[in-house]
Amino acid sequence: MNCLFPSQTFKDPKEYLPLLNMLKTLEPNYQRYTIDKHLKRNRKALHHLSKCGEEHFNEALNLVKDQRLYSEALGRYPTDSPQYKALSCAYAEYMVEQQQAEQAGLLLWRCGEAVRALQAFVGSASWRNALCVAEQIPLPPDQLALLARDLTEKLIALRRYTEAAILLEQYAKDCEEAISALVTGAVWEEALRLVYLYNRQDIIETNLKPALLEACSSQTTYLEAQMAMLIRHKTRLAVVWEVKEKDRLELLDEDVPDCPEAELYSEASSVMTGSHAGSKYSHSNSSRSSKNSRKAERKKPSLKEGIPLEDMDLLHALADIIHSVDKIRGEVHSLLKAMMLFQFDGQAGRLQQAYGEALQMMDAALPEVWQEGLQQSQAPISGPNSTANSIMASFQQPRPSATQETPPPPKMRNGVKWKLSILK
Amino acid sequence: MNCLFPSQTFKDPKEYLPLLNMLKTLEPNYQRYTIDKHLKRNRKALHHLSKCGEEHFNEALNLVKDQRLYSEALGRYPTDSPQYKALSCAYAEYMVEQQQAEQAGLLLWRCGEAVRALQAFVGSASWRNALCVAEQIPLPPDQLALLARDLTEKLIALRRYTEAAILLEQYAKDCEEAISALVTGAVWEEALRLVYLYNRQDIIETNLKPALLEACSSQTTYLEAQMAMLIRHKTRLAVVWEVKEKDRLELLDEDVPDCPEAELYSEASSVMTGSHAGSKYSHSNSSRSSKNSRKAERKKPSLKEGIPLEDMDLLHALADIIHSVDKIRGEVHSLLKAMMLFQFDGQAGRLQQAYGEALQMMDAALPEVWQEGLQQSQAPISGPNSTANSIMASFQQPRPSATQETPPPPKMRNGVKWKLSILK
Repeated sequence: MNCLFPSQTFKDPKEYLPLLNMLKTLEPNYQRYTIDKHLKRNRKALHHLSKCGEEHFNEALNLVKDQRLYSEALGRYPTDSPQYKALSCAYAEYMVEQQQAEQAGLLLWRCGEAVRALQAFVGSASWRNALCVAEQIPLPPDQLALLARDLTEKLIALRRYTEAAILLEQYAKDCEEAISALVTGAVWEEALRLVYLYNRQDIIETNLKPALLEACSSQTTYLEAQMAMLIRHKTRLAVVWEVKEKDRLELLDEDVPDCPEAELYSEASSVMTGSHAGSKYSHSNSSRSSKNSRKAERKKPSLKEGIPLEDMDLLHALADIIHSVDKIRGEVHSLLKAMMLFQFDGQAGRLQQAYGEALQMMDAALPEVWQEGLQQSQAPISGPNSTANSIMASFQQPRPSATQETPPPPKMRNGVKWKLSILK
Repeated sequence: MNCLFPSQTFKDPKEYLPLLNMLKTLEPNYQRYTIDKHLKRNRKALHHLSKCGEEHFNEALNLVKDQRLYSEALGRYPTDSPQYKALSCAYAEYMVEQQQAEQAGLLLWRCGEAVRALQAFVGSASWRNALCVAEQIPLPPDQLALLARDLTEKLIALRRYTEAAILLEQYAKDCEEAISALVTGAVWEEALRLVYLYNRQDIIETNLKPALLEACSSQTTYLEAQMAMLIRHKTRLAVVWEVKEKDRLELLDEDVPDCPEAELYSEASSVMTGSHAGSKYSHSNSSRSSKNSRKAERKKPSLKEGIPLEDMDLLHALADIIHSVDKIRGEVHSLLKAMMLFQFDGQAGRLQQAYGEALQMMDAALPEVWQEGLQQSQAPISGPNSTANSIMASFQQPRPSATQETPPPPKMRNGVKWKLSILK
């Protein structure tokens, strides 16, 4: 206990004896807590305080909140005790502040605070948990339906249409809205399943068919825009590489033993790398399932020609185009099947052809850009006139091959079948 | 019409005049069909024959089957005609033979052959379409339930547990089996949703909790095995590279102007590339959602040390490990949440720690293997004693950098959050 009062602080025993005597009157666990707290050994302090009984719990709760010892504290009380519940609620409040509302909901739910758990789950769009808690409370049917509508809005804003449809179908009991959500999300087969499950074939004419035709024309426009951009970037990349190659050869002609220019250039370009992230080309990888994200991807990069590392930006932009056009195989496949089912063979056939051509064009561009193009600009310069210095210099030149910068060639998933053989 | 009988074949008009006269007696469209068919202009022949009325339809159908002109033929008959239906059925038979039963089903469904469409959809596990057709027929409830069970089996064999659960819940009306399928598939939150929707909280104790604990221990074992393999492959790779580097330096010391050995080595290794696909390392990319695939991935590669391109095999194996361990972020996240909900904080905390360590270990291995390792073995050899030839030779050596062989460094999805901050 003497460790509390280091000799250099209290020279005179008279100064600390009263304190020591006070401590001696305390219950042993509370005594240890007081000492540990004084020494800022917070975990130990909590350990002892948790043994001091209910009358000291508020003090413990404050210590936990102050020092954020929530996890440690929960382990010290039985899960069915009021202390455990109070700690869980405090922890949940903290987690909500930390933008972790779902975890807050789990804490509240498991300690029996269902209503507060529901709030937390709704706040984090954790819709399955929210509904479980709602059924457990249980919410009356009309309130459950309202809750379902509320959650649906959140999910649709997040473009999670399939989940929104489950809510609308099973909890809001509104199959029409459920089908409509699926149609908006281009989840054609599931939409049709609900149409037949609820005997609502009328929706095929009013919603489904018009949506199919719109989706088809929207995909066609998207493909045209992406292919135009692919060609533009590829053409520009060839120009950029040609200029770089010319600069490189000119530099080599000077053949200065230490190649100071080369080093300077190399240094400059490595400094530029930092600003690369702010490039003006669109590198969007976001899902194309909504019209908003589609718009974002279609936006033309504000071409800044001649900037350093323009070739890297172009490679990134090309990789993005290839990645996102390749990614819609499944989407196109299910659209084609649905269109064919409703006899839109003509339009479906044209979309199939356009997508096939786009994939072929990208397949052809891949080796051109990533193999021939990159290898050519990476080849060491050697020949009858080269010297050790000129060859080394050719390796020190800025090339589009630096591992940190060159995006790897995007992989096309040619194994994913999307074509319908019944379409011409 | 004279084009039918080229002058060199029929010198004497007597030979072909009877034929010509016969043709003249035919109805004009049938006449043109006869000529086109004789000249093997099948598409044109079909075009004319389709105008010859019902009495010639069987002939048309045979032409279509013979020449596989299904798509062309469908365009020539009204979609509500018996001819369209007959052609669709013939086409569907052909598509089933071509292992395209789903497309066959669509052809049959849209021409009104619901029962045959159902068969085709069941055969291709196209369960949503199958159920739509079944509702349209309509199948009586008991048969619908049987159909649902049949389709469920197919889906479970394909490890599509979430879809199997929809079938069991909504068509077989068996919520217990639906929940069980979800538990088997580790779809914890959806399982819990059905538990509360159908008020079957008893299943939490009987099925859900034991399954959670089993999944936790299975994931832990999996992580241990993968990390052991990661270390083994990394260690072996360092040895392989060291040996290669030594060989390379020895080769350079000989400094023969044309480097014949280097070329020989290089040739040999490019021949070997063909056999690379048959490598003994496990390159499995299959989903880990079932125990079978997990087993397949865990199987130790039968290490064939010293084979050519062993370093490439090791890189592939390392990339596979990193890819598959990184891929289970979502799976681990939902397992941790479910375990925490049921107060399994201890086990969940240990799994969280193990997974965190595994991810860290892979994160550290990535630059070691793919940047430092590869760059080192790619660096041109230069120094006071090097000559133009020795430097060029160092580039001609077999290095693990050939574009076709080196697997690109796997990307870790560090943006995907999986950790629970409420677990210690």
